[in-house]
Amino acid sequence: MKLSIIAIGDELLIGQVTDTNTGSIARMLAPHGWQVTDAQVVADDAAAIRRAIDRAFETSRIVITTGGLGPTKDDITKATLRHIFGGEMRLDPTTLENVKEVVAKRGLALNDLTAAQAIVPTSCTVIQNRVGTAPIMWFEDKDGRVLVAMPGVPFETLQMMEREVLPRLLKRFPDATPVKHATMVVTGMPESSFATLLEPLERRFPEGMHLAYLPKPGYIRLRLDYKPYKLYEPYKPHEIIQHWLEQIVTRCGSNRVLALHDTTLAEIVQDHLIQRGLTMATAESCTGGNIAHTLTLVPGSSAYFLGGVVSYSNDVKTRVLDVSPDAIAQHGAVSLEVVEQMVEGACRVTGADCAVATSGIAGPGGAVPGKPVGTVAIAAHTPSAGTVSAMYHFPGSRDRVIDRATTEALLLLLKGV
Amino acid sequence: MKLSIIAIGDELLIGQVTDTNTGSIARMLAPHGWQVTDAQVVADDAAAIRRAIDRAFETSRIVITTGGLGPTKDDITKATLRHIFGGEMRLDPTTLENVKEVVAKRGLALNDLTAAQAIVPTSCTVIQNRVGTAPIMWFEDKDGRVLVAMPGVPFETLQMMEREVLPRLLKRFPDATPVKHATMVVTGMPESSFATLLEPLERRFPEGMHLAYLPKPGYIRLRLDYKPYKLYEPYKPHEIIQHWLEQIVTRCGSNRVLALHDTTLAEIVQDHLIQRGLTMATAESCTGGNIAHTLTLVPGSSAYFLGGVVSYSNDVKTRVLDVSPDAIAQHGAVSLEVVEQMVEGACRVTGADCAVATSGIAGPGGAVPGKPVGTVAIAAHTPSAGTVSAMYHFPGSRDRVIDRATTEALLLLLKGV
Repeated sequence: MKLSIIAIGDELLIGQVTDTNTGSIARMLAPHGWQVTDAQVVADDAAAIRRAIDRAFETSRIVITTGGLGPTKDDITKATLRHIFGGEMRLDPTTLENVKEVVAKRGLALNDLTAAQAIVPTSCTVIQNRVGTAPIMWFEDKDGRVLVAMPGVPFETLQMMEREVLPRLLKRFPDATPVKHATMVVTGMPESSFATLLEPLERRFPEGMHLAYLPKPGYIRLRLDYKPYKLYEPYKPHEIIQHWLEQIVTRCGSNRVLALHDTTLAEIVQDHLIQRGLTMATAESCTGGNIAHTLTLVPGSSAYFLGGVVSYSNDVKTRVLDVSPDAIAQHGAVSLEVVEQMVEGACRVTGADCAVATSGIAGPGGAVPGKPVGTVAIAAHTPSAGTVSAMYHFPGSRDRVIDRATTEALLLLLKGV
Repeated sequence: MKLSIIAIGDELLIGQVTDTNTGSIARMLAPHGWQVTDAQVVADDAAAIRRAIDRAFETSRIVITTGGLGPTKDDITKATLRHIFGGEMRLDPTTLENVKEVVAKRGLALNDLTAAQAIVPTSCTVIQNRVGTAPIMWFEDKDGRVLVAMPGVPFETLQMMEREVLPRLLKRFPDATPVKHATMVVTGMPESSFATLLEPLERRFPEGMHLAYLPKPGYIRLRLDYKPYKLYEPYKPHEIIQHWLEQIVTRCGSNRVLALHDTTLAEIVQDHLIQRGLTMATAESCTGGNIAHTLTLVPGSSAYFLGGVVSYSNDVKTRVLDVSPDAIAQHGAVSLEVVEQMVEGACRVTGADCAVATSGIAGPGGAVPGKPVGTVAIAAHTPSAGTVSAMYHFPGSRDRVIDRATTEALLLLLKGV
């Protein structure tokens, strides 16, 4: 099935908030073979919303809108939808009950603005929003075109999409030949080298198969899409996609393949360490806690991640991690000597088997002669490889240097596991 | 000036990558009064790209596209643009030199696919991409409509937008009456309560003034926009916006105002602590390093942030932070007793004046009787308020619990500063 998504909100168009709803909804629908044909972002403006909806219905018969349903006066989506789909505005008692419940759960009192959330067009079916006050509205016209208006708060959209809207959409629009996706993660070469390597394979792909390159700093996700044109082929779509996935692995070389499914570096680290019964710690200077944060975002990380030290100041490096002040004085805080002492200190202090350590200049200030912004020393320790370290230089802004250092520290660790 | 943005890429429509370029570009243009009237996301598909460009030129005479310029075969933007704006494809020697330089800087060899990046339509002016291999193409038709095709890699788009594209756009399209924005950060009440409080003020706003509510968990950004309809008013636009900003502060109550400019909690903490000459540390269990990461993302954080401990396991809590094993056994790791010991341990171990500590159940697993997923104990220590602590319960997924706990820890600290 094809659908269009419209994100509504002035704040999205001045860049004060980044729209993540469109991606989340697309990600949720993709495994079911649903394709987002186009996505739009429009202002809280009746004419703009109407135009976007007209455009969306040109390419799809299903439209999902997010946002523009808040209780404040800049939200005019509801009125615009009533205008398009007809009907009257009325206070819906069931919706009011739900709004009261949600407000009570938050320990708040109901005010008039919030109560007005329960005023909805008679032309829609309300899907009660269990986690927020803006009701979800399902409109369907006489031609069977469907528009679902969802709230803009990402948490609410995600929750309600998964619990209510997705099941209803799948039931209303059953699909016969879904697109199959398979994703793998590769590393060790730039995107264009992988592309050159895989080009001969791609030329032999069956009709309806497509390989997409999704580069991240340090590694690349390869996504293989397959939409069979005919329903009754001798092989099942998942067998065909599996066959080509294996061809790609062989061509890339299995040492360049980090994972055979869509995953993150943190998940790969977690899988590898838990499989081997190893525990891990971090000692972070320039990454400032981002490595620990990245690892602990993954559910179940407490099974192998013991903890870490953010040794931002030199004093904390020596006090907590027992880095020798001489090493700092002689080689500087951004040096292989210091990160090697940090990584070993992290293992000693936490009792972990493995650790990574970073010390660098994330910028924009802090450069010293011979060590420009972006210089990062990284060390990793594993029982089998011992302590290894390397100096890196990452281009770009502070957040980019922190991200790259995080990625390279985890890649360095994985080499030794 | 009004402009449209089109993000191109299959990966954006299946949600594998979230488009952040549109927001970044909008954010960069807003201070200059440029307004993004609509934004679209389309597939790597010639027909879809053409349709999106047609739509974009309906509302603006300036269009920026991002993405679809990679060296791999799924990128067809360049051919589509040549089709629209005419001309022939030719290998541009200057562009080839630049591509070679960028590739060499990355320590790589030039392959055919990457060299092909230098093939561009004769109808465009190339803006050399100093940080990537995809050239930026500036098209302008006989009616003065401009399309700038930028790369999709966020880092490249940001860098080149700032360094080259933005200055050229501002020069090409000077604007007389820009929109003025002012943003403030408030806390202590939900969005709808602020809306009720401010509604009488909003009714008295001058024409062209608009207040937008941008709620985040724990706090709300209020953005006041003003586009004067007439150029020669008795007061300057920035004086008028300043006047209304003061009215809003008075009405909200200054104790609810965290900042009078667009900022983040981390920046507010940094400003407050540096102003008072205080240093800070963290002791994180369930937030797993996210508080330290959030604080150290801000340039200059090393002036007050000394470091911290991610005490994910109980063992690290006792070994590094000297939390008493009895307190953990008696009250559990998620308890006020334990976070109070953690926050004091963090100050002692790092020598910092202030600290925050968290211990909770981020989920999805780990719930214990009486402490469901989302339960988080938070403590803060400051010289003037001493050690304070509170139990919280946050709804939602793991990342949401981590985010909320981070926010509330910083808000609790700010109360004591």
